[in-house]
Amino acid sequence: MRTVTWQSLSEEQQAAVLQRPAIAEGANITAAVSAVVDSVKKDGDKALLELTEKFDGVRPNSIRVSNEDIDAASERLSEEMKAALNQAYKNIAKFHQAQKPVPLKVETQPGVVCEQVTRPINTVGLYIPGGSAPLPSTVLMLGVPAQIAGCNKVVLCSPPPIADEILYVAKLCNIDEVYNLGGGQAIAAMAYGTDTVAKVDKIFGPGNAYVTEAKRQVSNDFRGAGIDMPAGPSEVLVIADETADADFIAADLLSQAEHGPDSQVVLVTPSVLIADQVTDAVQRQLQQLSRKDIAQQALASSLIIIAESVTQAIAISNYYGPEHLIVQTKNPRELVPLLDNAGSIFLGDWSPESVGDYASGTNHVLPTYGYTRTYSSLGLADFSKRMTVQELSADGLRILAPTVVTMADAEGLDAHKRAVTIRIEKLQSAE
Amino acid sequence: MRTVTWQSLSEEQQAAVLQRPAIAEGANITAAVSAVVDSVKKDGDKALLELTEKFDGVRPNSIRVSNEDIDAASERLSEEMKAALNQAYKNIAKFHQAQKPVPLKVETQPGVVCEQVTRPINTVGLYIPGGSAPLPSTVLMLGVPAQIAGCNKVVLCSPPPIADEILYVAKLCNIDEVYNLGGGQAIAAMAYGTDTVAKVDKIFGPGNAYVTEAKRQVSNDFRGAGIDMPAGPSEVLVIADETADADFIAADLLSQAEHGPDSQVVLVTPSVLIADQVTDAVQRQLQQLSRKDIAQQALASSLIIIAESVTQAIAISNYYGPEHLIVQTKNPRELVPLLDNAGSIFLGDWSPESVGDYASGTNHVLPTYGYTRTYSSLGLADFSKRMTVQELSADGLRILAPTVVTMADAEGLDAHKRAVTIRIEKLQSAE
Ligand SMILES: [Zn+2]
Ligand SMILES: [Zn+2]
Repeated sequence: MRTVTWQSLSEEQQAAVLQRPAIAEGANITAAVSAVVDSVKKDGDKALLELTEKFDGVRPNSIRVSNEDIDAASERLSEEMKAALNQAYKNIAKFHQAQKPVPLKVETQPGVVCEQVTRPINTVGLYIPGGSAPLPSTVLMLGVPAQIAGCNKVVLCSPPPIADEILYVAKLCNIDEVYNLGGGQAIAAMAYGTDTVAKVDKIFGPGNAYVTEAKRQVSNDFRGAGIDMPAGPSEVLVIADETADADFIAADLLSQAEHGPDSQVVLVTPSVLIADQVTDAVQRQLQQLSRKDIAQQALASSLIIIAESVTQAIAISNYYGPEHLIVQTKNPRELVPLLDNAGSIFLGDWSPESVGDYASGTNHVLPTYGYTRTYSSLGLADFSKRMTVQELSADGLRILAPTVVTMADAEGLDAHKRAVTIRIEKLQSAE
Repeated sequence: MRTVTWQSLSEEQQAAVLQRPAIAEGANITAAVSAVVDSVKKDGDKALLELTEKFDGVRPNSIRVSNEDIDAASERLSEEMKAALNQAYKNIAKFHQAQKPVPLKVETQPGVVCEQVTRPINTVGLYIPGGSAPLPSTVLMLGVPAQIAGCNKVVLCSPPPIADEILYVAKLCNIDEVYNLGGGQAIAAMAYGTDTVAKVDKIFGPGNAYVTEAKRQVSNDFRGAGIDMPAGPSEVLVIADETADADFIAADLLSQAEHGPDSQVVLVTPSVLIADQVTDAVQRQLQQLSRKDIAQQALASSLIIIAESVTQAIAISNYYGPEHLIVQTKNPRELVPLLDNAGSIFLGDWSPESVGDYASGTNHVLPTYGYTRTYSSLGLADFSKRMTVQELSADGLRILAPTVVTMADAEGLDAHKRAVTIRIEKLQSAE
């Protein structure tokens, strides 16, 4: 881990050390994904079966996973695993349930009533990547808010063979249909629909460069589907003072580092002693990890920043805008009002990032790569949309008419004005 | 206006009549905008002055409008105009103030506290198009929520010369800086910043094809800026039964038609009589409009659909997903729970669309072009972002530990598990 002292850097150098590396844009990825999307649009299920055989090396009996197969998954899982998934489900449901919007109704002027109403997005598609280990936690993070928002139809794609943990959680979340599909073909199938796969309004979930590019392509087509948020490498920034435990910090930095070689890992501390202790502890703990190689690659570009004070450390964090922000200081709670531009915040010694990844109740789908400045932690709102409603009484329109008429005049919109005056004339003639 | 009877159409024909026309994608627009963006990134203010001279035909004394010039605008406006703008400001502020989120704090398990906190987006940029008439209403619709959300810095770009109405509202909304800038160069300046123009985190506002393309380009660059929502032609769908007033409906359809030749105008009614009366009334009222030519072009592709019932009319509207939905039926209020996929809804005889465009209090920036299925009416939420916070006590971590450990094991993430167990070991050794 590289250590720098913030005050010794020029403004340009400060910006440079916190600059995220550009994500390589492969023209070959764009073209490959575009071909996959076209093929799914043209040949539907036939293309899906061929592409799955080509990319995943298997030809599933059917694209859709049967209810019997989903039920059977539960029988193969240990009681311990089911208990853990059930508990995580409960906590995540509790936190997302609390996000239900309160109906909003305001009388802005007498007889002018304005409302905001919320509706679930009708059909949503969840993408769960495959890989060496299953990701049931991501099914929870997408499936629970979809269920609580009340989406009419929820479908899930994951490359075959789909792990029992994923099928079990899909059932917990009452997901309607599960498909043996991965990669760009899964995204295309959900965006455009096929005989077997339901067309969805919005697609959620992480994935590799092909999945990310496919999500970008279908979201740029108004006949495609919306997507959750821009993707980027995962990140953590830890703010720690001299009261922090270096072993805990090292463990948190390594949790982030093991996600992938491109993970961003930053510690900001006013304590040189903590910086040194963490450097040592990281080296020590690293040796025990099964994903040591991956973590080591991420650590190569990781950073320890020596700040002048906790206040300066916060300013650095707000500037960087990390996906995960861990605060291990004397009084972390008091710092919350000062914290900005973070996806999810972990306060104090007993709140490691992994509790948020799995089971505290917060969502682990978070803006990263600096998008914390404008995007939100995934929540119920992302599975819903807000519509406004207005209802004027005849008197309400009478009161508001002069304002609307004057403004329509200023904007040169005759018919807008006329839609008001024609009604006022009718009211007057009825008097 | 073309009239079709819904039941007489096949499913394909039904989909076809409601299919929106594709927006022409100009490769030349993409290239032209890309050149403008590059030039602003490279030459900053110098490029802005040159591009403004080239595209707007004026070279302003300065890019930034001085506070004196903003103050002077107020003196030139009529008292009537100021009263109208003040009233609209008040109503819009009242409705958006009500959207302030309530703090959310949940103890999901004993000692496991999860929160959702909301922060304003730090810096936002508002774009107001030029054109034959000024658009102070759009300044209100963007400036009021930015102010209420508490954005730290709000800037506004509009092509010179900027109308007094716009400057007056900019002051009402406490906008920090106003720039004499239009088109792609305005968007590029706000996305990347120049010596004069502040770099912003997110850009809001409508515009022509060049502005839309510039917003797309800067939002696809993670070093650029976020944007509000996808753009598309404006739309209205009116659901009316036999109790509706054909003159009112015609006035509403024409308000939409006068926005632009590409405006989408649809009436759905179970009453053939109303359909006929509206057709006549539209022709009659059209003659009186100053923007008759524009409205006529929009009407050429407009549509009257004869439905079997109000219930079917609602199903058609939910399928189409209009930006504006006007309901003129016997009991419009009772239908609200059935309405979906609409930007803003206008209930009853006395709620023409123009009240929402200007002054009822709702926002007139709405998803269109079918994006109502996934996007929301612009509101306070778009000027804010939600972060989550979690704080566990030592006991909270003890209770949650088995769940996290089991799930981390399932996902093969050692360091995630270790971040929990290292803390539990420390607790045990302290006992
Ligand atoms: Zn993690
Ligand atoms: Zn309008």
